[in-house]
Amino acid sequence: MDFKTDVTIIGAGPAGLFAVFECGMLGLKCHVVDALPDIGGQCTTLYPEKPIYDVPGHPSILAGDLIAQLEAQAKPFAPHYHLDQAVTELQSAEGRFRLTTSTGSQIDSGAIIIAAGAGAFGPNKPPIQGIETYEGKSVFYMVRKRADFTGKRVVIAGGGDSAVDWALSLADVAEKVYVVHRRDGFRAAPESVQRLHLAAANGGRVEMVIPYQLKNLQGANGLLTGVQVANLDGAEKTIEADALLAFFGLAAKLGPVADWGLGIHANHIDTNPATAATNVPGIFAIGDVADYEHKVRLILTGFSEAAAAAHSAWRHMHPGEALHMEYSTAKGVPGQKGADIKTIAL
Amino acid sequence: MDFKTDVTIIGAGPAGLFAVFECGMLGLKCHVVDALPDIGGQCTTLYPEKPIYDVPGHPSILAGDLIAQLEAQAKPFAPHYHLDQAVTELQSAEGRFRLTTSTGSQIDSGAIIIAAGAGAFGPNKPPIQGIETYEGKSVFYMVRKRADFTGKRVVIAGGGDSAVDWALSLADVAEKVYVVHRRDGFRAAPESVQRLHLAAANGGRVEMVIPYQLKNLQGANGLLTGVQVANLDGAEKTIEADALLAFFGLAAKLGPVADWGLGIHANHIDTNPATAATNVPGIFAIGDVADYEHKVRLILTGFSEAAAAAHSAWRHMHPGEALHMEYSTAKGVPGQKGADIKTIAL
Repeated sequence: MDFKTDVTIIGAGPAGLFAVFECGMLGLKCHVVDALPDIGGQCTTLYPEKPIYDVPGHPSILAGDLIAQLEAQAKPFAPHYHLDQAVTELQSAEGRFRLTTSTGSQIDSGAIIIAAGAGAFGPNKPPIQGIETYEGKSVFYMVRKRADFTGKRVVIAGGGDSAVDWALSLADVAEKVYVVHRRDGFRAAPESVQRLHLAAANGGRVEMVIPYQLKNLQGANGLLTGVQVANLDGAEKTIEADALLAFFGLAAKLGPVADWGLGIHANHIDTNPATAATNVPGIFAIGDVADYEHKVRLILTGFSEAAAAAHSAWRHMHPGEALHMEYSTAKGVPGQKGADIKTIAL
Repeated sequence: MDFKTDVTIIGAGPAGLFAVFECGMLGLKCHVVDALPDIGGQCTTLYPEKPIYDVPGHPSILAGDLIAQLEAQAKPFAPHYHLDQAVTELQSAEGRFRLTTSTGSQIDSGAIIIAAGAGAFGPNKPPIQGIETYEGKSVFYMVRKRADFTGKRVVIAGGGDSAVDWALSLADVAEKVYVVHRRDGFRAAPESVQRLHLAAANGGRVEMVIPYQLKNLQGANGLLTGVQVANLDGAEKTIEADALLAFFGLAAKLGPVADWGLGIHANHIDTNPATAATNVPGIFAIGDVADYEHKVRLILTGFSEAAAAAHSAWRHMHPGEALHMEYSTAKGVPGQKGADIKTIAL
């Protein structure tokens, strides 16, 4: 699908959502891309039920409720959300940007606002060369359907809740479940760990491979035949297996954004604190992904940067023109009762 | 009264109130001085019933309600408010500041955060030399008690609602009311203007002095005997009078803050957008009074600057120490149910 808009916002967390509002107040339409299936970023994914005490004007608000409020605030400006899609490529030509997502959608816009938070969250992958040729075929970092593993020999690597819970669950359908972990202790619910040890002790479908770590994969054309493991003494063995599930947690990654020629240090994009400008004209960065000396890393800082980025984007797209800002108290927002819904006079 | 605290905040508008919270989160106690009798600044004084649409996380909130929320958010940190007191003087010695207010209170603190908005609102005064010697005795910019003008000859200058309404009102008690205005039209409720013209036409206590402007005052020891007026052609005349009421509207003034050696342009204080620092170490400025290139003048910008100023004040008062910031989601705020109320580890 091909789209054309004023501003493309990367990241639908609080800063990205508020950027929709601020752009809207200046008459700029937005498309928003996020790798997660829902808007809200970490607020939705990591701590929706946690109260936040430092959003100005909210002595206490649950992270999930804050996102709902920000969504409502952005809604009058009809943002187009492209969720569950990672950003894969950015090209620029004739002063405009063309952004491609992992579903092949292309969005043409006059400015880019990166509000990627700590980056897109993705699985930590084991450092095995060539593992990517197996990914999605016989190596996985999450279980989409339990039935996919019916009758299979599955190696599960990891020591947290995901590893323990999926080992117990898949033991019901798989031919065999091997649990590879580098030490005896698990960081998981004690009751589940106890059940796992019991299942293994009973000589059933679960076998503990401890203390071992993943070493190598055997197979061809993306189809696994065996998983090589090694213990701390260097002793190796091979487990015959059809699938590997690696559960080593999630980590944030900047992804392809890191290749756009932006000034970056320690996974953060260098910006001007007053304008949210990066070193590339027309590309702005806000919220946790943006950095400058003495930055206070709070949600409210992202809000203020969203306003700065919207104004900067407007100036970038209207060179030489003067922006006559109207205040929301005087102008209102579209759809608000009693508000004048005309867009800003340029 | 003598007080000692960590940070003195000048201005109890939204930015100043939120600075109390942000300082509190870093373990800094605050005193807040405001010339107005209530907290909230313009939100309280000028438009408490107006909805604001651009406070992040509030699709719509009345200005007065926003102030109530911000007051509640600051409350756990027990700010000490000094209201109805203008700032009159600031002295610094040995790395600390001593601020004096118009009631004679003195506040000793380690840092100053100026959140003075557009400045303290005061009356526009007519450009007459020596007028200050009459102020409060026979020249006034507002009416405290109507009875003060009983039996007096009063000159009212101005063309707005205040001039028209007080002329009508004082006509009931004064010996004579002269209305001096530079042109025939008034910017006031048409019905009131009509009543004023009627009162003057009936040869009663109201006399219109149009088109005339104030030129000079006659009298001694603060007691007025006459008001000289002139028309556009230069023709002059003197009105025998006991009192002058000048209604030329209100304007914001920085006041004594302008004399503290701060970088100032067009009534605004120059600041660093990342740190809210002024050119004087230990003095920070936030919200509408603070300015830098491309600043977006919104309430939410003041919130973010409040956070920056609090962190900068902390660094100023703890040179060489590292601040280990904790997030409100992890740490909570004092008095919040279930929150850990210990102050931040320094």
